[in-house]
Amino acid sequence: MSGPQSEKSRDPTLDEVMKLHEGGKLRMVLTCEMNTVADLRRIYTPGVALVCKAVESDPAKFRRYTTVGNTIAVVTNGTAVLGLGDIGVMGAMPVMEGKSAILIRMAGVSSIPILVDTKDADEFVRAVELIAPTFGAILLEDVAAPMCFEVEDRLKASLKIPVFHDDQHGTAVVVLGALIRALALTGRDKADCRVVINGAGAAGSAIARYLLAFGIHDVVLCDRKGALYRGRTDGMNPAKEDIARVTNRYNEKGTLAEVFRGKDVFIGVSGPGLVTQDMVRSMRKDPIIFALANPIPEIWPEEALAAGAAIADHGRNINNALGFPGLFRGTLDAEAACINEPMKLAASHALAGLAPKGKIVPDFMDLEVHRVVAAAVADAARKSGVSRAKV
Amino acid sequence: MSGPQSEKSRDPTLDEVMKLHEGGKLRMVLTCEMNTVADLRRIYTPGVALVCKAVESDPAKFRRYTTVGNTIAVVTNGTAVLGLGDIGVMGAMPVMEGKSAILIRMAGVSSIPILVDTKDADEFVRAVELIAPTFGAILLEDVAAPMCFEVEDRLKASLKIPVFHDDQHGTAVVVLGALIRALALTGRDKADCRVVINGAGAAGSAIARYLLAFGIHDVVLCDRKGALYRGRTDGMNPAKEDIARVTNRYNEKGTLAEVFRGKDVFIGVSGPGLVTQDMVRSMRKDPIIFALANPIPEIWPEEALAAGAAIADHGRNINNALGFPGLFRGTLDAEAACINEPMKLAASHALAGLAPKGKIVPDFMDLEVHRVVAAAVADAARKSGVSRAKV
Repeated sequence: MSGPQSEKSRDPTLDEVMKLHEGGKLRMVLTCEMNTVADLRRIYTPGVALVCKAVESDPAKFRRYTTVGNTIAVVTNGTAVLGLGDIGVMGAMPVMEGKSAILIRMAGVSSIPILVDTKDADEFVRAVELIAPTFGAILLEDVAAPMCFEVEDRLKASLKIPVFHDDQHGTAVVVLGALIRALALTGRDKADCRVVINGAGAAGSAIARYLLAFGIHDVVLCDRKGALYRGRTDGMNPAKEDIARVTNRYNEKGTLAEVFRGKDVFIGVSGPGLVTQDMVRSMRKDPIIFALANPIPEIWPEEALAAGAAIADHGRNINNALGFPGLFRGTLDAEAACINEPMKLAASHALAGLAPKGKIVPDFMDLEVHRVVAAAVADAARKSGVSRAKV
Repeated sequence: MSGPQSEKSRDPTLDEVMKLHEGGKLRMVLTCEMNTVADLRRIYTPGVALVCKAVESDPAKFRRYTTVGNTIAVVTNGTAVLGLGDIGVMGAMPVMEGKSAILIRMAGVSSIPILVDTKDADEFVRAVELIAPTFGAILLEDVAAPMCFEVEDRLKASLKIPVFHDDQHGTAVVVLGALIRALALTGRDKADCRVVINGAGAAGSAIARYLLAFGIHDVVLCDRKGALYRGRTDGMNPAKEDIARVTNRYNEKGTLAEVFRGKDVFIGVSGPGLVTQDMVRSMRKDPIIFALANPIPEIWPEEALAAGAAIADHGRNINNALGFPGLFRGTLDAEAACINEPMKLAASHALAGLAPKGKIVPDFMDLEVHRVVAAAVADAARKSGVSRAKV
């Protein structure tokens, strides 16, 4: 029904990528004139002292008269960078700049990469807490599971600004947007839909929980050892035990190939080539295949379609870059205290509604897409009571 | 001989200052094009992964292919903001943005304010250490004494990038630049020069030490209780005891007015109106008065000149904004490991050389001034062996 939306453009070469990255991708600029001593006296001493006194003890004025209201931090410790793994904060920086570049370009959010060089959860949390007043929101990025769950929970509890781990919730928001669309295109009802997810890290767990919150009841999560089920003892950890308690309603056991049988939807956030055409053939009629492993998917869309998939796509199209710019723009616009389920669901539905005829995701390069998502998110923030902005 | 160089422009009004600060003064922007999916694939996945791998374990490539090489953090805990004191991190933000604005506009340094919300030295140091990989240098700002001394010392010891407390060393650099000029204009020899400094906080102590390093031997530092001398017990602390050990060669005692007698130079970094015309009259012939308290000086230059001062100026002209832009530009250009004495002295001498005929400081708004200071600083970094840049 719908083929992959992949651009036919080639992958960039090392030479052109290194040349583009010379000197980095970002810089801070002024938003006001500074050409005369009179300008200087407004921007700096003595004039600035008047602003200091005005914002000193009034959070609303602080947001209004400083950059904080339009600024977020993209924070990482470099432990789960793309498909490269634990390459450290230096290796993570180009990705943090890339995410910031997208937030700046597609949504006008002033986004600042912050490297936090520790694998200790206590240190990481404390450092982010101490610098948090500098920012209107915190985007956690490329922090490995299970530490990412702990630091997100703790920062959400202690900070008064939104904290959002994009690898979990941003991915989930975009996947659900594409899935809402794919369910409609294949005439499915979410209540009957059977989903298998491969990859039980940050993204897989968040997608599973989010699909449940959306109203899909039958979600089985697999890792390298197969289905996560209640009572499994091999290769479990507290995070996996938690997720096994709320997913896998029939407590299915077995390998990924065994769990595939009779499912409607496969969502892969795992590794290259883990899904075969025979596995696709074992699914229900007209299955949906989201093979999101980067850069090489679990199964190439062409192969999945050849094996009977109605819809097949990969992570270059179903990419969280569709979600986070609008999510953060809307969050900052509404001065939201958090990014809650209604805001995320509003983003997913907006993305589904924006996909062109016959497609499952909208065009990332279309600024209007991010504007519509932002407006939906801000609206949901207001309706769910977490907006602090005066209307 | 030389009057105050004060601009005659009026102070800005509350209304115009608040209007200018609406939305803050800074924002992050892209330094590359992002208009097509092909651009996106270079800036973000999959292309960015090639850069991540290249910079992962090579500090030289990390600086070259990320923003880090041209980015500094302006870090405060908001405990000594302008003359406003301990107003907290929120109140400090407009000043941090103002300093960043100056670094951006006058020296092309991408400068990011970072608020660190703690008065605990251990927490402050650890937070800055953890986020330090994000930056090419750290500018400490508006951290109260004596904590500023401890955190600077500890961060210098633990970090591999330059750490510079501007309220201390930036002020000292600019004051010495103006003083070198004033000594020349009044035909004085530094070796005979007798200096009294009022204000024994961060700035006063740093100026005192720096004048000694420059070769002025007779420097007496005063606080509210008068001269700091060896053996004084009233109102001392370890920092003051340290400074009393190296200054005040004749171990002078007494009030500020008493210490004034027979001095050549007064440098005030204290409070409004603490110096009288009689005190100026008690100095050696043709005295030099730098009354730097902001916004109201220890004595207005006009009054000091009327009482016989050869040169009198205040903090709006002898301002560290003359120093830090070029200091940081030169430091980043040379990829210096620190900002050492030769680099600071190079900046002071450059400033002295740049002052127009009959003036003691150059024109802050002249970009060439900051370029010349930067070049002198970078050159001093290379000659003193702390540059990591390949020539």
